[in-house]
Amino acid sequence: MEIKKSTLYIIPSFIGNNDSLEHISSYNLRIINEIRYFIVESEKKSRRFIKKILPEKNQDDLFFIQINKNKNYLDVENYLNPLKKGENMGLMSDSGNPVIADPGASVINSAHILKINVKPLVGPSSILLGLISSGMNGQKFTFTGYLPINIKERTKQLKYLEKKSIKYYETQIFIETPYRNNQLLALMKKVLSPNTQLSVASCLDSKEEKIISLPIRDWKKEKINLDKKPTVFLIGIK
Amino acid sequence: MEIKKSTLYIIPSFIGNNDSLEHISSYNLRIINEIRYFIVESEKKSRRFIKKILPEKNQDDLFFIQINKNKNYLDVENYLNPLKKGENMGLMSDSGNPVIADPGASVINSAHILKINVKPLVGPSSILLGLISSGMNGQKFTFTGYLPINIKERTKQLKYLEKKSIKYYETQIFIETPYRNNQLLALMKKVLSPNTQLSVASCLDSKEEKIISLPIRDWKKEKINLDKKPTVFLIGIK
Repeated sequence: MEIKKSTLYIIPSFIGNNDSLEHISSYNLRIINEIRYFIVESEKKSRRFIKKILPEKNQDDLFFIQINKNKNYLDVENYLNPLKKGENMGLMSDSGNPVIADPGASVINSAHILKINVKPLVGPSSILLGLISSGMNGQKFTFTGYLPINIKERTKQLKYLEKKSIKYYETQIFIETPYRNNQLLALMKKVLSPNTQLSVASCLDSKEEKIISLPIRDWKKEKINLDKKPTVFLIGIK
Repeated sequence: MEIKKSTLYIIPSFIGNNDSLEHISSYNLRIINEIRYFIVESEKKSRRFIKKILPEKNQDDLFFIQINKNKNYLDVENYLNPLKKGENMGLMSDSGNPVIADPGASVINSAHILKINVKPLVGPSSILLGLISSGMNGQKFTFTGYLPINIKERTKQLKYLEKKSIKYYETQIFIETPYRNNQLLALMKKVLSPNTQLSVASCLDSKEEKIISLPIRDWKKEKINLDKKPTVFLIGIK
């Protein structure tokens, strides 16, 4: 008899309101349906996601471990106990892919240390969708997460990213806490060069999806309200 | 009557041999089924992809424009003529997402200039899957494409990426022409620091998928043949 090695599946959830069954592959559905042990960012949101895509799955039968902020690897290794006993597990964050601008890397890392099979499933990533729809260079790009909050440091960082995008022909991708999006956009219009390309990808994979890519000079005429909308920002040259 | 604005869909194809209908969402299937005009890397591979997922779709009825190496934007704008006439179009590369380490950015860029709707569909990206399964930092990462071929320059570049990964806690992602993979791996084992983490993600989204993430010191004992296998390499710290 073949002994099946247990696997840690990395499970993407929806990023927008395109969240019907039409938007998930039946492979992902089948795998998620087979898993009882989950490591998640929040139990509530993961249960809601599973309920939506697999309403028949018995939720009483599921076990959830919430990733806490504790970076102690010994703890994280304990998360993986069901895998050591031969059970498959699923790693999930609240939105999109775990790890990318989301928790999960330390869990994957522990799995590698323990020689556990790691299997990423295919799903939506706002950073990837933002990049491919920007019209900017996809041969070379950097994701830097959040910008500094302090205006002086933020301006400095924006100018540094702009310079880097020209010098290395490298697309610069970053995000912002959604309630600060409008502020960030206003600042970019003010401090970036008129020739710099800025792409704004908002509410990706939603009915309200909006993707606008323009040189800063043309952004000055553009009216868009990004307040509280999840948005990816990209600057670069064409 | 509402006039529907025509849309340029960015369509991902399969990256490995997990290429059955089980691995594609019915939303993607429905959109691809409605499109007659495609801008593609190669007509032959795109026709084969469509045949596989939509065997009933009439192939005689489809129009393909192959993206050539000509960077003349006037030409690229001509690709988009069906969109100007109100038809939807699909942009496709031979493997995975267009734009990312693939052609397509200039087409998207022209669409933005012409104020045409751009809509990215969700699908597999080896770079994204490689990153989330590496156990390395997903809050900050850079994709740099191919390394220089010349050994001296390549060594210099590897050491530069290693230094950058430590200094900025930034994961470095790169790829290689598949028949040079073993050579690159051997060089990394030789020139990188024993503590540097190296993740190798090979044949992603295939039955032969292999993901190994280890410090260089432990890679020395590892035997793996990457020859001619599509592979993503990542270096960083844990």
